[in-house]
Formats: sequence, C-alpha cells, structure tokens
Amino acid sequence: MKKIKVIIAGPRGRMGREAVKLVEATENYQLVAAIDYKYDGKLLREIEGFHALEVPVYGDVEKCLSEIEADVLIDLTTPEIGMHHTKTALWHGVRPVVGTTGFSKEDLAELQATCEEKELGCIIAPNFALGAVLMMKFSQMAAKYFKDVEIIELHHDQKLDAPSGTAVKTAEMISAVREQKNQGHPNEKETMQGARGANFEGMHIHSVRLPGLIAHQQVMFGSDGQTLSIRHDSYNRASFMSGVKLAVDTVMKLDTFVYGLENIIE
Amino acid sequence: MKKIKVIIAGPRGRMGREAVKLVEATENYQLVAAIDYKYDGKLLREIEGFHALEVPVYGDVEKCLSEIEADVLIDLTTPEIGMHHTKTALWHGVRPVVGTTGFSKEDLAELQATCEEKELGCIIAPNFALGAVLMMKFSQMAAKYFKDVEIIELHHDQKLDAPSGTAVKTAEMISAVREQKNQGHPNEKETMQGARGANFEGMHIHSVRLPGLIAHQQVMFGSDGQTLSIRHDSYNRASFMSGVKLAVDTVMKLDTFVYGLENIIE
Amino acid sequence: MKKIKVIIAGPRGRMGREAVKLVEATENYQLVAAIDYKYDGKLLREIEGFHALEVPVYGDVEKCLSEIEADVLIDLTTPEIGMHHTKTALWHGVRPVVGTTGFSKEDLAELQATCEEKELGCIIAPNFALGAVLMMKFSQMAAKYFKDVEIIELHHDQKLDAPSGTAVKTAEMISAVREQKNQGHPNEKETMQGARGANFEGMHIHSVRLPGLIAHQQVMFGSDGQTLSIRHDSYNRASFMSGVKLAVDTVMKLDTFVYGLENIIE
Amino acid sequence: MKKIKVIIAGPRGRMGREAVKLVEATENYQLVAAIDYKYDGKLLREIEGFHALEVPVYGDVEKCLSEIEADVLIDLTTPEIGMHHTKTALWHGVRPVVGTTGFSKEDLAELQATCEEKELGCIIAPNFALGAVLMMKFSQMAAKYFKDVEIIELHHDQKLDAPSGTAVKTAEMISAVREQKNQGHPNEKETMQGARGANFEGMHIHSVRLPGLIAHQQVMFGSDGQTLSIRHDSYNRASFMSGVKLAVDTVMKLDTFVYGLENIIE
Repeated sequence: MKKIKVIIAGPRGRMGREAVKLVEATENYQLVAAIDYKYDGKLLREIEGFHALEVPVYGDVEKCLSEIEADVLIDLTTPEIGMHHTKTALWHGVRPVVGTTGFSKEDLAELQATCEEKELGCIIAPNFALGAVLMMKFSQMAAKYFKDVEIIELHHDQKLDAPSGTAVKTAEMISAVREQKNQGHPNEKETMQGARGANFEGMHIHSVRLPGLIAHQQVMFGSDGQTLSIRHDSYNRASFMSGVKLAVDTVMKLDTFVYGLENIIE
Repeated sequence: MKKIKVIIAGPRGRMGREAVKLVEATENYQLVAAIDYKYDGKLLREIEGFHALEVPVYGDVEKCLSEIEADVLIDLTTPEIGMHHTKTALWHGVRPVVGTTGFSKEDLAELQATCEEKELGCIIAPNFALGAVLMMKFSQMAAKYFKDVEIIELHHDQKLDAPSGTAVKTAEMISAVREQKNQGHPNEKETMQGARGANFEGMHIHSVRLPGLIAHQQVMFGSDGQTLSIRHDSYNRASFMSGVKLAVDTVMKLDTFVYGLENIIE
Repeated sequence: MKKIKVIIAGPRGRMGREAVKLVEATENYQLVAAIDYKYDGKLLREIEGFHALEVPVYGDVEKCLSEIEADVLIDLTTPEIGMHHTKTALWHGVRPVVGTTGFSKEDLAELQATCEEKELGCIIAPNFALGAVLMMKFSQMAAKYFKDVEIIELHHDQKLDAPSGTAVKTAEMISAVREQKNQGHPNEKETMQGARGANFEGMHIHSVRLPGLIAHQQVMFGSDGQTLSIRHDSYNRASFMSGVKLAVDTVMKLDTFVYGLENIIE
Repeated sequence: MKKIKVIIAGPRGRMGREAVKLVEATENYQLVAAIDYKYDGKLLREIEGFHALEVPVYGDVEKCLSEIEADVLIDLTTPEIGMHHTKTALWHGVRPVVGTTGFSKEDLAELQATCEEKELGCIIAPNFALGAVLMMKFSQMAAKYFKDVEIIELHHDQKLDAPSGTAVKTAEMISAVREQKNQGHPNEKETMQGARGANFEGMHIHSVRLPGLIAHQQVMFGSDGQTLSIRHDSYNRASFMSGVKLAVDTVMKLDTFVYGLENIIE
C-alpha cells in the first residue's frame, strides 16, 4: 500500500504534538516534513520532546512544498498563518487538513474557489473531536422528531465562560431544524433565579462546573413516555486525533472543499 | 386544513387504546371507524373504556372499507389478521400503518409489490418507539467511526429473556457496518464467569434487571480519550405514539413500501 | 408471627390507595379499619376501586379507635385532620405513621411531648420515597468531604416551580454541614443569563423540564480527578411504599418521636 | 497555626509524586524529609522531577526519624518495607498514614497492639480514592433498605481482570448486610451466555471495557417504582490525594488504629 505523505505545521503546540504521534503510529502515514518558523533547517528530533525523528523542519511553507513531495498538510497553527499555509498547499497540489475556528467568510470562500479550480480536497475543521461532532449531528437529526430538548454541559471549574462554545454550537444546529417552541410549562416559575438555565430560542442550557470534571455534554430530548439522551465525554486531547485521522483519510478522496467534520459523516 | 381520516384496527389492545387517544388528541386527524371482530355494528363508546366516541365499529375489514371513506388504516392486531387488513386496505386505496413484528419475507414482498402497483404508501413498523429507533440508527452511524462499542440494557426484573430484543437488533445493525473487532484486552480474564457480558461478534452486551426499572438502553462507544453514549429511556406505552404519528404523517406523502421507521428518518 | 394491625386514614387518595395495597400485600400486616369521613359505617369494598375488602370504614377517629384494636395508624390525609388523628391515636396507645409536610413547629413539639409522656413511637415523614431520603442523607454525608457540589433535578414539563422542593431540601441539608464555598471560577461569566443555574449559598441548582420525564435528581460532587454522583429516579407512586413499610416496621420498636425518615436510617 | 510536619516514604512512585505535590500545596503541611533507599544523603531537588525542594532524603527510616522531628509518616512503598517503616514510626511517636493492600492479618494485629500501647493514631488504607470509599460505604448503607442491586464497573480496555477489585470489594460489603436474594426473575433465561453478568451471591456484576474510559463504577439499587444509583468516576491519580489529606488530618486526632478510610467517615 502506498503511504500517505504528511507535513505537519505547528508541531510544538499541544495539538501538533498529538498529530506527530498519530502520524508516527499510523501504518500507512509517513511524516515527511514539519513547518515551524523557529527551527528552520533543523531535524524534528532536535526539538525538545521529539525523539529519533529524522524529519526536516522548514521555517517557510513555500520552500518546504517546493523541496518535499507530500499528499496532505495538517495545519495546527493560527488563523493568519494557517490561511497562508492552506492557500500555498493548494497551489502546490497538496491537500490541506486544517484545525482552526478563526477563518473569515471571505477566507473560506477563497479557499472553496481554489479547491474547485484545482479540483483538490480540503477540510477545515473547527472541532476535531469526532465524538462531539457526532453528538451535534445526531442532536440535530433528533430535533426534527423531538421538539423538546435541554442541553447540560459539564466542565472543570476553571472554565471561565458559560455556556460552553460546543453547547452554543449544538443549540444553533438544533435551532436550524426544530419547530420553534418555548419549553416548560407556560406558567412555570423560578423560585430561585437561574434554576431553569439559559434560554436559547425556547430551549434551555445548563452549565455544571466542578473540579474533577473535564469536558462533557449531554443533550436530552423528551416526548410522551420517553427520553433520548446523547452524551459525549472528552477525557483528554487524544480525543481529537480520531477526527484528524478521519479528515486525512477522507481528504485524499475529495476534490471539493468541506467545512466542518459533520459534513463528511454519512 | 383537510383532516386525515383514520381507521383503527384493534382498538381494545394496549397499543390500540393509545392510538385512539392519539387520533382524538391530534387536531388534523379524524377517527372515522374502528375494526373489532367482537363488536360489529356497535359504536366505539359502547365498548368499555371509550367514552363519547360516536364512531362505528366493524367486524369485517372489507365491509368497513366499502362503507367508510378513509385515508389511513392503523393496524394493531396480530400478524395473520394484520396481513389480511393491510392487503385489503391497499386494494381500497387506503394507506396502511402497521405495528407488527410477525410478517414473513413473502408477506413483505407481496405488500411491496402491491404498493408499487397501486402507487400507495405503506409503513410496517416492528417498533414504534421513535426514541428507540433513533438510538439504533445513531448507533449504526457511530459504529462507522468508533469500532469499540458495548451495549447496556436495563429492564424490570420480571423480564424473562436476556439480552432484550432491542439490544440484539441494535447489535445486528452495528455489526452490519462496523469493522470486525474482538473488544477488550486480548489477555483479558473473567475471575467471575459472565462479568464481561454476552459476546456478540466481538462486542459485549450487558443485561441489568432491577425492580423499579422500566425499559432502558445505553449504547457506549469509546476511542482514545473520549466516549460517546446514546441512551433511550422508555417510561410507558405512550412512547409509541410519537412513532405512530410520524408514520401516519409520512405515509400520506409516500407512494412506496417502507419496512422499519429507521427508513423514514432523515 | 403476630400480625401488625393497621388502620389507614385517607384510603381514597392516591397515596392511600397504594397504602391499602401495601398492607394487603404484606404478610405480617393486617388491615383492621379505614377512616374516611364520607363513608362512615360502610365496608371498604363498598367504595369504588376496593374489591373484596371486608374492612369497616369509620367517619370518626375517636369512634374507630374505641371499637377497633390496632397497633399502627397510617395517616395520609391533610395537615389539619392529620394532627387530630395523630394526637387521638397516641392517646389510644396506637403508633402513628404520618405522611405530611404541613405540621407547624408547635404541632411537632406537642406530638413529641405526647410521645414522651406515653412512651410511644410516632413517625412523621414529609417524604416517604426511601430512595430520595437516602439520596439526601448520602449527599449530606458526602458534603463533609467534597465541598464542591451541584444539583441537577429533572422533572416532566408540567411542573410549575423550579427548583423542586426535594432539590431545595437537599441543598439545605448539604449547607448545614459543608464548608461555605462560592463554586466555579471567581471570574466565571455567563454569556447567556441563567446558564450557571440557581445559586444557593454558593452551590448551583439546575432544573431540567422535559415531557416524558417523571421525577429524577442527581447530586454531583467533584474534587481533583474524581466525581461522585448520587441519583434517584422515581417512576411512580409505588416508590413511596417502601418508605411507608419501613416506617411501620420501625415505629413498632420505637418509644420516641421521629421527624423525617432520614433519622431512622442507620 | 502550627504546621503538620510530614515525611514521605516512596517519593518517586506515582502515588509518592502526587503526595509530594499535595504536601507542598497544603498550607498547614510541611515536608520535612523523604525516605528513598536509592538517594540517601541527597536533597529531594536532586532527584529528577522534583524542583526546588530543599528537603533531605534518607535511605534508612531509623536514621531519618532520629534526626528529623515529624508528626506524620506517609508511606507509599511496598508491604514489606511499609511494615518496617510503620512500626519504626510508631516507636518514634510519629503517626503513620499507609497506602497498601498487602499487610497480613498478623501485621495488622501487631500494628493495632502497638497503637494501643503507644496511644498513637495510625491509618492503613488499601484505597485512598475518597469518592470510591464513599460509594462503597453508601452502597452498603443502601443495601439494608434495597435488597436488589447490580454493579456496573467501566474501565479502559487495557485492564486484564474482570470484575475489578473495587467491584468485588463493593459486592462483599453489600453482601455483609443485605438480606440474601437471587435477583432477576426465577425463570429468567440467557439467550446469549453471560448477558446477565457475573453472579455474586445473587447480585449481578457487569464489566464494561472501552478505550477512552478510565475508572468508573455505578451501583444501582431498585425497588417498586424507583431506582437509586451511586456512581464514582475517577479521572486520574490526583483523586487519591483527597483521601491522603483526610487521613493525615484525621490521624493527628486519633490515638487508635484504623484500617480502611470507610471507618473514619461519619
């Protein structure tokens, strides 16, 4: 079997380190280069935390792609750098898999146009946690049949914002398909303010914060005589890697632009 | 809005009584007749437990369909009677919604052929609990991405068989799509026999039985750093009615034969 | 074995009907009379819903206790009537088991004094659901060791008040023992109002309302690297009967006054 | 406030490293020495992974206790070495807190006798995870009132034995108090072998194994119309430290021998 040749941009970040491990551990993947502006000209093994990896590091994406033959660029940098990397990769015929939430609508439109012109696959994923993506997708599907839904998200108590970004994204996805409804009894009364949680277009979101917890979310649907619950528990960053792997495998078969892993799930 | 005219066959059974309530409670449905061999010529309100329903009861399906104009026949009788009812309905241009697990392959093939000939919708559903159907469908979808899965089903302690029919059906649906895998550590050892549950093609099924419980099932998927759980809790028979309603609404737009609610869910 | 002779006051209420079933189904209990102001002089079987029970019904507690030899009076009436019944029972040497939330402090003090004088057991229980009582007791015990706690209560969407009475009672019991703490991050911010739930002395309470749900509560404790959850699911009124039975069995061995089932649990 | 002076034996082990962090992070604790046969005469900061800790390391417990004034010895070594450390500490008037499962009955009897003679507290804890200890204690308490119980334990799929040690310990503790019962329907039938789990004196234990999971256990009790569930989720080794802290605080007030954290919980 021919191996998929992978370049990783941003290998020193937390996601980047996991991605390096993933590529090393996957039999039909081959790590051919890394892009890291701080270590141009070095080998990956010369950077702290990477043992025995005789892989060249480039500071510049253009030079890297000119010298190294690759199939996929996994980009785990920042939105600004990532946009430059992604465009350059497409122009060199390399398929990008990009983990970022920061691209503007104009960026996305430009990348889509480039993909169409080049007939190349490209996947931009704000969230690589495959379980979370499935939870959101299933929730959206269920909301067509169960119009009553509440979201309970549970995180460690060092989290600053409530509700979580994933909870808001889930509510938005549900809202796009469900019949509008103000849930609960019309005369329902909070004897303590806030008991019924946040109200997002008639559905309720509850944010639990406790030390010990990591990142969890449960979406509950109810109708006469039954409830349906979809829950994702994320215990550590390794959970992102199944999504990265799915994206790499899928992008090789694509000749279009895809935004969000939920759109490559059948 | 034009009302959907409904005939219910088997109104005295537990499902039948719920169906009568459903049709009465739904604004755009109209109950136009019931079929019950024991009460031919009576009105529904003359049968114990049905108040104020001036709806004619027929002992014979043929006579009923000749005299009464209807859109949908909800059949909640036995497989033998149900097959006769379903065929007769199709010949009269009435769309059947049938809750039964007992039709043979030949029966199903015959009904499918009749539907095609008549260009009429017909839905046969072994399970009307919409939440359970979604749980099974989502589990099958998730199994493409998470090959490690265990099923925990929980029922009251008067249940005789373990695992439950729903658990076995779920396992079969998962098995049809997932990459074969013997789960658990290769050297895993039961120090008490049965601890690891039933082994169905490498996945494990656990049956919990306790007084107080009703009918619950949780399907758990795991991969590095995360788990995804899909759970259905059924508290009473009313839970079937959301599925019956979906089937009635859907069958009106269909001109084909459908077996299983999972196939009308998008 | 000598049977415990039981009188039930309020047999027609929902709790009362369950209590009649309980006494009938328990081998060493014997139903010797019922008190119901509407059916004085009748037999219980003459009241709708009670078959074959040749048990005398009294409209007046005084007359009942003068004519009938009994060990225990189960009172499931209203606070006003219940107080009269309870006092009268104690004066006749009959041990009361009373399910009510409405007695005043003065009432309770008076009953306690009477119990001491008569050296008779008496149990007043605002909540007979044994599982709920254990949940509250365990939560209070755990709060000595885990000062971070959140309460999630889940009920059907016809419930008017949030949070539930049980959730408030649980929070009060926890508050009585736990080290005061404002939970969550000091700089935590609600981007949607109410997301973090109700704040009760620094702990948070979340009220979920969905059709299908019955009455459920989960108390979650967290500390570094772990969470402890205690959950009660109540599916129907039968759940109260294990508490009534415990109270009847216990009151026979008591010569003191007890308020709340949590105080007879070891 | 006077600080509690602590010596840690076995600082390089996984538990030991967490214990060093705990003592450093607790305001009224002071780390005064470590015992590690490999690093006699060094400072703790000279061992890899310990930064800036100017704490002397001793190879020999006798020498350590002669030179260093201490209140508590936390021993996280092996049973053989631990027994020697524990006895020596007691003879020097230092209270031991020991995490081990390996002491023999004779060892425990000898330590108990020494504690009585010296009127010194000593705590031996096979399990320091406070949440797990509470789960077991509450389960035992609940089993007096709910004789139907099933245990579901869930671990990562690298675990070799099923059921887990904690599940067996929980079952034994329940068995010591509950009325004997063969659970499930008397005519219950496994259509797939093992579905009903392991049978321990009539109660059932189910072992779930999935990648992603860490260490979790749920004990479920059922009776008419209700269930009570007690669940512990352990996410990492830090979970042991709340138990170590409780033991250190408690041992300072004790003048007796205690085996198992469940016996210092009120």
